Amino acid sequence: VEKTLEEIARLLDARIEGNASAVIKDAAPLEDAGPGEITFLAGRKQARLLYSTRAGAVIVKEGEVFGPCDKNLLIVKNPQLAFARVLEVLRPSEPPPAGVHPRAEVHSSARLGKGVSVQAFCVVCEGAEVGDGTVLYPGVYVGRDARIGPGSTVHAGAAIRQGCIVGSRVVIHCNAVVGSDGFGFAKEGARYHKIPQTGIVRIGDDVEIGACVTIDRATLGETVIGRGTKIDNLVQIAHNVRIGEDSVIAAQTGIAGSSAIGSRVMFGGQVGIGDHVNIGDDTLLGAKSGVGADIAGGGAFSGIPAIPHREWLRAQNLYKKLPELKRRLEELEKRLERLEKPGG
Amino acid sequence: VEKTLEEIARLLDARIEGNASAVIKDAAPLEDAGPGEITFLAGRKQARLLYSTRAGAVIVKEGEVFGPCDKNLLIVKNPQLAFARVLEVLRPSEPPPAGVHPRAEVHSSARLGKGVSVQAFCVVCEGAEVGDGTVLYPGVYVGRDARIGPGSTVHAGAAIRQGCIVGSRVVIHCNAVVGSDGFGFAKEGARYHKIPQTGIVRIGDDVEIGACVTIDRATLGETVIGRGTKIDNLVQIAHNVRIGEDSVIAAQTGIAGSSAIGSRVMFGGQVGIGDHVNIGDDTLLGAKSGVGADIAGGGAFSGIPAIPHREWLRAQNLYKKLPELKRRLEELEKRLERLEKPGG
Amino acid sequence: VEKTLEEIARLLDARIEGNASAVIKDAAPLEDAGPGEITFLAGRKQARLLYSTRAGAVIVKEGEVFGPCDKNLLIVKNPQLAFARVLEVLRPSEPPPAGVHPRAEVHSSARLGKGVSVQAFCVVCEGAEVGDGTVLYPGVYVGRDARIGPGSTVHAGAAIRQGCIVGSRVVIHCNAVVGSDGFGFAKEGARYHKIPQTGIVRIGDDVEIGACVTIDRATLGETVIGRGTKIDNLVQIAHNVRIGEDSVIAAQTGIAGSSAIGSRVMFGGQVGIGDHVNIGDDTLLGAKSGVGADIAGGGAFSGIPAIPHREWLRAQNLYKKLPELKRRLEELEKRLERLEKPGG
Repeated sequence: VEKTLEEIARLLDARIEGNASAVIKDAAPLEDAGPGEITFLAGRKQARLLYSTRAGAVIVKEGEVFGPCDKNLLIVKNPQLAFARVLEVLRPSEPPPAGVHPRAEVHSSARLGKGVSVQAFCVVCEGAEVGDGTVLYPGVYVGRDARIGPGSTVHAGAAIRQGCIVGSRVVIHCNAVVGSDGFGFAKEGARYHKIPQTGIVRIGDDVEIGACVTIDRATLGETVIGRGTKIDNLVQIAHNVRIGEDSVIAAQTGIAGSSAIGSRVMFGGQVGIGDHVNIGDDTLLGAKSGVGADIAGGGAFSGIPAIPHREWLRAQNLYKKLPELKRRLEELEKRLERLEKPGG
Repeated sequence: VEKTLEEIARLLDARIEGNASAVIKDAAPLEDAGPGEITFLAGRKQARLLYSTRAGAVIVKEGEVFGPCDKNLLIVKNPQLAFARVLEVLRPSEPPPAGVHPRAEVHSSARLGKGVSVQAFCVVCEGAEVGDGTVLYPGVYVGRDARIGPGSTVHAGAAIRQGCIVGSRVVIHCNAVVGSDGFGFAKEGARYHKIPQTGIVRIGDDVEIGACVTIDRATLGETVIGRGTKIDNLVQIAHNVRIGEDSVIAAQTGIAGSSAIGSRVMFGGQVGIGDHVNIGDDTLLGAKSGVGADIAGGGAFSGIPAIPHREWLRAQNLYKKLPELKRRLEELEKRLERLEKPGG
Repeated sequence: VEKTLEEIARLLDARIEGNASAVIKDAAPLEDAGPGEITFLAGRKQARLLYSTRAGAVIVKEGEVFGPCDKNLLIVKNPQLAFARVLEVLRPSEPPPAGVHPRAEVHSSARLGKGVSVQAFCVVCEGAEVGDGTVLYPGVYVGRDARIGPGSTVHAGAAIRQGCIVGSRVVIHCNAVVGSDGFGFAKEGARYHKIPQTGIVRIGDDVEIGACVTIDRATLGETVIGRGTKIDNLVQIAHNVRIGEDSVIAAQTGIAGSSAIGSRVMFGGQVGIGDHVNIGDDTLLGAKSGVGADIAGGGAFSGIPAIPHREWLRAQNLYKKLPELKRRLEELEKRLERLEKPGG
């Protein structure tokens, strides 16, 4: 797709400095962009690249001051967001054609919206519902009475089991599992007896669920992922967990049963949250941290168990100096012994 | 499904206090249960909820003493187990109808038991065997000569590769993989040469395997999961690992090659076990702990590397006080220096 | 398959000590091998087993000196590699027959090489390419314009999304995902706006990708896995990551966005690498370590954050002695106080 800088500026509500009729054919990172390609300046740290880039145009942040420069600039409030929109225009994704593939298996009682695409080897079970314009890539499984809202995309091999409810404009990546049984067993002597997992998973609008993510259904009631929350690959969400809105959970994080996670939290990769833990809104957790007790909300935490991030930095820094601290302690002991000697 | 309290009591071998003819229509957690719903008291901590719950009946533990209360009570030895059984009755799962779906691909040499359900897009290869009443949900793959016992359930997208043996009443969740190749390579100069992984995986009766779990086949011989062991989502079991009976492995745990894990162990989430490690019966490992050396058995361990849990608690507690300890050390150094000065 | 020791020796370019006409029918571990079975001595530690094994033949390392022994020996430079080759001969894998299964869905524009096997319920999309002799097991998804080189094996349920490029002799295990969207969002107020992930994944020759591994496509450009690199199960590789050649990444490791990993690195299990981190060639990372800053290359590191492995061992050793160190510190404080007292 080709656009003039002027067309792009109109789309982004951007101010142009430079040649408005320059033709833009593609987008690229700042380091790689050539003539005819648009790029963006992620922040002040990259500012010097503005002078060396060969890009045909650069999206920069309003109010950031640069020296004189001969590049075509697009001045916006949020360069990263603007770049995302430019990508949508210059590299449009082609959704697969609507329709039910003859090799998909859709139950006669299932309700499919307008413009739905159900590709080969998908299974849509009895009573299930798929909203307008939603795309099910090959091999997707939609269990009995499950519901997927309009405008959603479910990639190849993902499974949405019985009764689960998925919102609008949700993206579920390949081989993710929504609605697997919660890990609940009652002890019967030394053995375990399975507790039926009869609840569901409810996923809000605009959620993204990574590849091979597993989200367990509630024992009773619902496991809930709030609107706008983004979940990276290989994350585990246990039964009866509740996550708020616009939260971001990085890859390989695990959240154990019945924990409640707030809105706008950001969890690094490989974080672990114990069961029945409450984590308040806006909490940041460093990668690999482990949380076993409630965090009221706000603030950044790291470590196993997690402590305030600044304290963790200080402790971590001393951790590697433990051998030195021990040496100093031993020296003190010797010197003190000398002093304590009669006549010392 | 509707039952009187008397019918439920008979089923659970429970004693009733209250109205035996009360009608129970569903089950719910203690906080949410309303009239017509049965719930259970998980332990003493919840006791005060007994007076505020609106539940139609509450399952309580024999011998726990409560003040006078106007609730209908069912008195049993194991309330959680009783509740699991009530759920089975009040919210019965409907297994899919028996039969081979016309769009499943079952090799002519495969042996299917009575009442087997093989759903759409399943593949059952040459020489494979599926026991009586076992259900294969859509898209399940059963490799050549693999065997699954009776009464098992394999959820959508799971793969059981060639030659692997799965017991009776086993549950395998969506997209789990049984029998992937072990991660074994021989060095040939700077490069790696694949060592053929020619063994199998053997899964005992009554095992549960979570979604997206991966269990590698042995290089030679067998990777073994013992009877009654429960494995949560996204767990990795490497080649030639052996796990005993009635063990519980929480999500995202990884066990490296040739390690031997005992019976009745309980591993928290995100635990890591090195290769060729032996962990004895009844061992408890805290979430996120890492074990690189043998643990003879019994006892609770935490940390990386894992140490006895109590020692870990003490060390962890001092860890965050390292900055304080360092300050005290420095102060001692100064005071000592003053003392050591001539005339100090 | 049966072979004489002489036939095996010729194959391995090995020297025989003992009966060249001994018949070998199978291979087994040193402890389990019986007559008619061949095994190998992994290293000096196992040497005493050479005298007790019942194996029909033992592969040993050239130059290692043993006392006189009545076993049939095959003397080679690299016993493990030799054993791998013996396994290939004695337990040959039977690839599935070539051809496109009538229940596979191959787009008319897809190009399939000679001897390709496309099994039931596979989907090969428009413009995709599959090289000579490559095997796609059931339910594999090959997206639009994706390319897989010759001699590769893709196991059941794996997905290779649009545009991704896979080399020759690559093995991809069940339910792995190549080319899921990178985890990239632009903030728009408190909400997140998806950044289109328009790049690809490029996988070099002779790579192995474990079960349920997730490799995200680049935002722009390529996520790259270099030739000969081996990736274990449940590993997460984020967008725009680049990994060199002959590297080994153990299970459940995660590498965040845009990081660059060298050649011949070895990462233990459950390692975490932050985003935009550079790790040089030949770096070793202990299991569960976390790396947030560049490592120039070479050397072994452990811990969270990772420090040189030897320093970590020392610090870790003192970590569990923290209570003791604190006691000694407190004692010093008391003794010093006594000394400081007038007349002390």
